[in-house]
Amino acid sequence: MGDTRTEDDVLAAIERRRRRPHFKLMDEHITLSHGAGGKASRALLEALIVRELGNPVLAPLGDHAQLPPAGDLPLALTTDASVVAPIFFPGGDIGELAVNGAVNDLAMGGARPLYLSTSLILEEGLAVADLRRVVQSMAAAARAAGVVIAAGDTKVVERGKADGLYITTTGVGVIEHGRRLGPAQIRPGDRVLLSGTVGDHGMAIMLARGGLELEAALESDTAPLHELAQLLLTASEHVRCMRDPTRGGVATVLNELALAAEVAIVLDELSVPVRPEVTGACELLGIDPLYVANEGKLIAIVAPEDEQAALAALQSHPLGTSAAVVGEVRAEPPGMVVLETAFGGTRVVDMLAGDPLPRIC
Amino acid sequence: MGDTRTEDDVLAAIERRRRRPHFKLMDEHITLSHGAGGKASRALLEALIVRELGNPVLAPLGDHAQLPPAGDLPLALTTDASVVAPIFFPGGDIGELAVNGAVNDLAMGGARPLYLSTSLILEEGLAVADLRRVVQSMAAAARAAGVVIAAGDTKVVERGKADGLYITTTGVGVIEHGRRLGPAQIRPGDRVLLSGTVGDHGMAIMLARGGLELEAALESDTAPLHELAQLLLTASEHVRCMRDPTRGGVATVLNELALAAEVAIVLDELSVPVRPEVTGACELLGIDPLYVANEGKLIAIVAPEDEQAALAALQSHPLGTSAAVVGEVRAEPPGMVVLETAFGGTRVVDMLAGDPLPRIC
Repeated sequence: MGDTRTEDDVLAAIERRRRRPHFKLMDEHITLSHGAGGKASRALLEALIVRELGNPVLAPLGDHAQLPPAGDLPLALTTDASVVAPIFFPGGDIGELAVNGAVNDLAMGGARPLYLSTSLILEEGLAVADLRRVVQSMAAAARAAGVVIAAGDTKVVERGKADGLYITTTGVGVIEHGRRLGPAQIRPGDRVLLSGTVGDHGMAIMLARGGLELEAALESDTAPLHELAQLLLTASEHVRCMRDPTRGGVATVLNELALAAEVAIVLDELSVPVRPEVTGACELLGIDPLYVANEGKLIAIVAPEDEQAALAALQSHPLGTSAAVVGEVRAEPPGMVVLETAFGGTRVVDMLAGDPLPRIC
Repeated sequence: MGDTRTEDDVLAAIERRRRRPHFKLMDEHITLSHGAGGKASRALLEALIVRELGNPVLAPLGDHAQLPPAGDLPLALTTDASVVAPIFFPGGDIGELAVNGAVNDLAMGGARPLYLSTSLILEEGLAVADLRRVVQSMAAAARAAGVVIAAGDTKVVERGKADGLYITTTGVGVIEHGRRLGPAQIRPGDRVLLSGTVGDHGMAIMLARGGLELEAALESDTAPLHELAQLLLTASEHVRCMRDPTRGGVATVLNELALAAEVAIVLDELSVPVRPEVTGACELLGIDPLYVANEGKLIAIVAPEDEQAALAALQSHPLGTSAAVVGEVRAEPPGMVVLETAFGGTRVVDMLAGDPLPRIC
């Protein structure tokens, strides 16, 4: 019992082991053992996940991460399951998508993303090299967004039962502005801004799945939107609401806002930016780009007097160079989204029914 | 533009719609449409998930939940993927397990659980009635643990690709005690306490899978441990570390602690509480109950002078009636767990290798 070590000695030993893991990961493919909580799990954790994501908060590998006090600011919490197929696609992969997804959900409330947790559900047989690539991608996306991956869990399911891997990311942020944002702030007369082209992510995934006779060079737009959101909040005191039009696309988000605020939203078809390759692919598939998922775009509703300042703020950022004013809010008919078409007509843009593009994110 | 509604009017309208959803859920089985973000997704969300989990934080269904400031206390963050098969089993289901799993990971650090987020990955074809039962279970478990489910996400994958459903829960808590807990606090001479019988959860799942010629009435021990943990911290100022021995069981957790603290842990086989039905089932399967998952038990390492106070605290709670002192910490051999057997011998208890019980949690 003559143990004279101090707490610092023990912490130093823990840190040494983090750098020189006890357990080596020799396997080329994931097996059920990697999910069992024993030696193989430990090897996966030490030699791959913690090594790639490594940071002082995650490293102790306790039951939970301890985070510093957040003080008097409200917190924001969001969670995002990523089940995209395929897991690698032009412009990104499931790891980058999972991190950006949580970052963006925080950013849309004007929250500053601080911490992420991640749960990985791995399929038996997944190549360890593919997992490493995904985890490296998560680490890079977290660095780019300035968030720390603070906690994680890994499970393994039998071959055929997770299609490679599924990732859930949960984000914690702080809300530093004292604004009220949300559908309840929307008023008739407000302007609808969109930060860039629509449909890039969804169409890139469709092309990556193959089977289309199309040679378009389309990339996912997956990107963190926190800087764009901050620029917007700084430029305009009357930002009503921000949303990122992911699953269901611009049409679905605008319908949700129109329903929640009991207003009409009128979209001007000609002012919605769409890449020609996306238009082409959508026509081929019979899909309206307004329903196609985006992963690096935001919709902002702003007061009419701030329209130009807000647009200039978006356009000043590399992710907002194609930003445009795409519509406005009216009182009637409440709960509806109406498109003024290129041909001078109007049509109702309903919420998405069915699922033309399953597992897009 | 003559809109004279106040923000309160709009918020009231949002609340009215929460009570009388726009979208009805008529389906009996989950389809890919429920994951598409459109009408079917909205119906699932309004008429099932929010209705069952309903609370003012979750109800607005924005990109993220806004939580009140947490002040000067450190935060705790944990995440847990639940992939248990079958999803219903004696004593619980995947929903209860997912909530308790996150609550317990927070409780083991002495954190008070405040908020949970949840992501549901649903398989096409899942019965809506089964999903409702699972979500009701989550709501009940959250109420029992005093946590608010504040954020969520739902995705659907094709038939065969999620085995019913997978759930990830992420927990946020506050750490109100000023203690230092963790492996670095463990010292030779410390006592090892266990709050109850081992192996109940794992064996209940094995029996629920069928195929065993065994009629034992075994139930999962899934339960929230936050009260037990608080009692322990109040009774003893020298709690070194708490852990819940889930996947990999008591043997794996003790090995992790021995490795991290560079100490030996000596277990007394006779003092480890095991139900006779669990012993019987384990013998039949050739599995050591020390490696079998528990979902409502904790291991505490406490200073020798607090052994009796800590034990009394555990035994004072309904979840700790079978609590026992099961071992002690020694200086040598560092990183090892040694069992003193019922027959007076000793053997090394290594970390789990392979996976005798896949998808146990």
